Amino acid sequence: MSKNQRGNKLLIFALGGMDEIGKNMYAIQYGNDIVVIDAGLMFPDEEMLGIDVVIPDVSYLVENQDKVRGIIITHGHEDHIGGLPYILKQLKVPLYATQLTMGLIEHKLREAHVHDIKRTVIHVNSELTLGQLKATFFQTNHSIPDSVGVCVDTPEGAVVHTGDFKFDMTPVNDQYADLHRMAELGKKGVLCLLSDSTNAERPGFTGSEQSVGESLKETFRHAKQRVIVATFASNIHRIQQVVDACVLYGRKLAVVGRSMINVINIATELGYLQMPEDLIIDTDDINRLPGHKVAVISTGSQGETMSALTRMANSSHRKVEILPGDTVVIAATPIPGNERAIGKTIDQLFRIGADVVYSAVAHVHVSGHGSQEDLKLMLSLLKPKYFIPIHGEYRMLRAHAQLAEAVGVRPENVFICDNGDTVEIANGRARYGPKIPTGKVLIDGLGVGDVGNIVLRDRKLLSQDGILVVVVTLSKEHGTILAGPDIISRGFVYVRESEKLLDEANHVVRNTMERCMKDQVSEWASLKTNIRDSLSKFLFERTRRRPMILPIIMEV
Amino acid sequence: MSKNQRGNKLLIFALGGMDEIGKNMYAIQYGNDIVVIDAGLMFPDEEMLGIDVVIPDVSYLVENQDKVRGIIITHGHEDHIGGLPYILKQLKVPLYATQLTMGLIEHKLREAHVHDIKRTVIHVNSELTLGQLKATFFQTNHSIPDSVGVCVDTPEGAVVHTGDFKFDMTPVNDQYADLHRMAELGKKGVLCLLSDSTNAERPGFTGSEQSVGESLKETFRHAKQRVIVATFASNIHRIQQVVDACVLYGRKLAVVGRSMINVINIATELGYLQMPEDLIIDTDDINRLPGHKVAVISTGSQGETMSALTRMANSSHRKVEILPGDTVVIAATPIPGNERAIGKTIDQLFRIGADVVYSAVAHVHVSGHGSQEDLKLMLSLLKPKYFIPIHGEYRMLRAHAQLAEAVGVRPENVFICDNGDTVEIANGRARYGPKIPTGKVLIDGLGVGDVGNIVLRDRKLLSQDGILVVVVTLSKEHGTILAGPDIISRGFVYVRESEKLLDEANHVVRNTMERCMKDQVSEWASLKTNIRDSLSKFLFERTRRRPMILPIIMEV
Repeated sequence: MSKNQRGNKLLIFALGGMDEIGKNMYAIQYGNDIVVIDAGLMFPDEEMLGIDVVIPDVSYLVENQDKVRGIIITHGHEDHIGGLPYILKQLKVPLYATQLTMGLIEHKLREAHVHDIKRTVIHVNSELTLGQLKATFFQTNHSIPDSVGVCVDTPEGAVVHTGDFKFDMTPVNDQYADLHRMAELGKKGVLCLLSDSTNAERPGFTGSEQSVGESLKETFRHAKQRVIVATFASNIHRIQQVVDACVLYGRKLAVVGRSMINVINIATELGYLQMPEDLIIDTDDINRLPGHKVAVISTGSQGETMSALTRMANSSHRKVEILPGDTVVIAATPIPGNERAIGKTIDQLFRIGADVVYSAVAHVHVSGHGSQEDLKLMLSLLKPKYFIPIHGEYRMLRAHAQLAEAVGVRPENVFICDNGDTVEIANGRARYGPKIPTGKVLIDGLGVGDVGNIVLRDRKLLSQDGILVVVVTLSKEHGTILAGPDIISRGFVYVRESEKLLDEANHVVRNTMERCMKDQVSEWASLKTNIRDSLSKFLFERTRRRPMILPIIMEV
Repeated sequence: MSKNQRGNKLLIFALGGMDEIGKNMYAIQYGNDIVVIDAGLMFPDEEMLGIDVVIPDVSYLVENQDKVRGIIITHGHEDHIGGLPYILKQLKVPLYATQLTMGLIEHKLREAHVHDIKRTVIHVNSELTLGQLKATFFQTNHSIPDSVGVCVDTPEGAVVHTGDFKFDMTPVNDQYADLHRMAELGKKGVLCLLSDSTNAERPGFTGSEQSVGESLKETFRHAKQRVIVATFASNIHRIQQVVDACVLYGRKLAVVGRSMINVINIATELGYLQMPEDLIIDTDDINRLPGHKVAVISTGSQGETMSALTRMANSSHRKVEILPGDTVVIAATPIPGNERAIGKTIDQLFRIGADVVYSAVAHVHVSGHGSQEDLKLMLSLLKPKYFIPIHGEYRMLRAHAQLAEAVGVRPENVFICDNGDTVEIANGRARYGPKIPTGKVLIDGLGVGDVGNIVLRDRKLLSQDGILVVVVTLSKEHGTILAGPDIISRGFVYVRESEKLLDEANHVVRNTMERCMKDQVSEWASLKTNIRDSLSKFLFERTRRRPMILPIIMEV
């Protein structure tokens, strides 16, 4: 079949990952064939009160389920795989991922009781035929092993998706970025490139993971007592370097934190962590060895309230107590929004008497995402005709667009998209196409999508000034007050200190009701509105606060 | 009177500012004389839901009001003056501050209707006799003019408080740091130094404010349309540099944002801003001039929801609309916790088509606080016997302590304190003394201290999963249900989508009540507990959420 025989078009779009860091999900559609790349989650921002996680709205894919040839996963981070347990309940399509990535996914799906998905482990030389589309892969460097970029060959030409990447010429494992394959793709011609924009504002090259290893060794060398290293559970390269430092300086290693234990088990089993057999000790055995013979690797590098490190810092961890003289390495930088929590954890550790090594004062973290020079190298190798910056907030996408233009992509060939925007390519020419419906699906407990803007607005109101419930029982027959009004408040004022205020509030309600009855306001709705308005006015005058007011009228 | 004739001791302590950035308040007490330095506020952290500001608990000073000789203010930032409107209502003591600082304070006190305070404007050569204590001052560099350090001479020796400072050898105004006076103090002998620890983790010297001016000029030179600069209203040096750039490139300047207008008025009136007479234009006149003839200076550099810049970015500002081609400079770095809000503002500005210049990509901010080399210079000039790092979270205080030791202060002479800890010096020897009661006072609307832990805990609960109110009216005589149970929820689920769940919840309540009545549970308290428990269990099983449950029983 020749190109466009049936007038087919190539559509490229994101269901998540545009103008945000998180819930990455991209799709390439040609006629009746859709290939999805990644299915991530996002952690809620501070406005999404009570929400656990956020995933993309995949209703477009569910409606076109018969066309979806599969979901390809570029690597095993939450913002690329975390949506799967939810999405695969609606979308029964094949899954493709490299070995480690699949190992992490399988653990997730087991926990979520998702069993009926066809899974195929791919490797860098795999070739997938997905309808009229063909997918091949190339190795990249990132802060988790087995990360790949994807090349999707379409009748219109090759679409390349980088996944998350940087160029690390001295990686911790032997997974070198496949520069030759990238060069080859570029030489053959790339129609459109989708590339990671996370660090597009940052000048220079991102450093090698090995440079963190050097700092870790230095810290291990000087530490007199135990060394506790907190880092991202998924950063297996960094875990490997902690293991190496333990071997070098003769320390045993205890593992703390559920996700750390889980990832280390999977990575060791699949051969992604090289670990001497007798290195790992049980947390119960930590205290049986002298301090200078022990290291601990732990979760909690973001100061998360319930994490192992936070509990250790607050001396509330069941197994591990941090002692004066211990060295704690927080091998991470704060993700925006976590600065205060991490700061408090560090303060607490210092107070215990630990020596704390953290990113403000030591080189204990490098990013997994390429900086401007990495991004320009990728663009220069692949030489795309069209460019779509992905994986970043708007200003990062825009900064990446400027880098593309700087290395020769024509400005009119750069498409900055929002989630749901499509880039439509036909006969070699690209333009913005029709919008695909998408959005955020909020997950709160077991509820998927049952918390919307009204509920969030109420939570916000409740969080600011609390609530006053006004209850009154009326006689159905006579319209007289049989009981109440009672006022119960939560989160408004400390009742014992404000009895007088609440007494006066009661009078306000009583007066309002009497006035309404005299005026023969008999409809409940307007009676409630009157109560709400007068009480709200009274409370604002007296306190400058606006609690939620909930009038309840019972009829007997 | 010779030293310690009456066995008096010198006490040095903080009521705020230790282990935190904010609500600075320090005190020096000798016998019956107390001198207070600063009286700041702090902005609430993310756990303090609905709280407007936090001030120090000054009950110790109120109890010892007859001993308090005065409050000396080092400079006009909120974390040093913001507590005054609240504190001066309880504490009627004289106030001492430099001219600009007093100008800013007077505006605050007028707004808060605090009138009966004796105020004295000081200058760098002032000498205050405050009982047995004597205060003198020295000029420092900081991000607001008229900042001073304080030397309090006591019978035990000199106590020096640096205020907030850095060393800027090329300040924007002619307020050079008084190195000579500092050297003189050091030569005469400093018993104890209290010094600003904000940037104690940061290596090197902090840059000169003039370096920001160079970037501003560069931006003005290239801007084709209007230039909008957002910065801290109190940074009069930076405002001066915006004024200078306007003069240099022939632009008129419009001022936007209440606090910006206010500070510019005060600073101009008092001679701290040098401004050509016809420079300022009304916001109504912005659109009458061509874009390249106009600049705007604005608040909102921290992405605050209601600030001028945020409203301009969201196209909801009454007067100023940002147009494609405008240049917006955000001349500030994010205060920890504000990263996301600022990021969103920048994204929004880019979307409008503005060119945005911000700290991640340009040199548009320098700190007002000294880095490690500044701090070491201060320590080296003053050569204190004892050292108390102040103004910083614990890890910063600790880093500052290490700097002091590095330049020769004996480790045993360094005192890291919490708020309320005292350092007691008698006969030239210092040790930790008795604790002074202190803490946080939370301000919510007009309420000072009426929101405590219980209210905050309730707000937190309400914010996470909302509330379910269960109301039922019982017959007093027969104990039967006359009306209800009714369940009303807010912030829990979107009702229309969860009717079934709430119906079932109603059944659970009904069953519980029937069981209780059969078991002759007649006490309301236990009936309520039973309803709460069974409903909570049911809802958690069905939704994995834990809304607050508020059972209300009315008797008729």
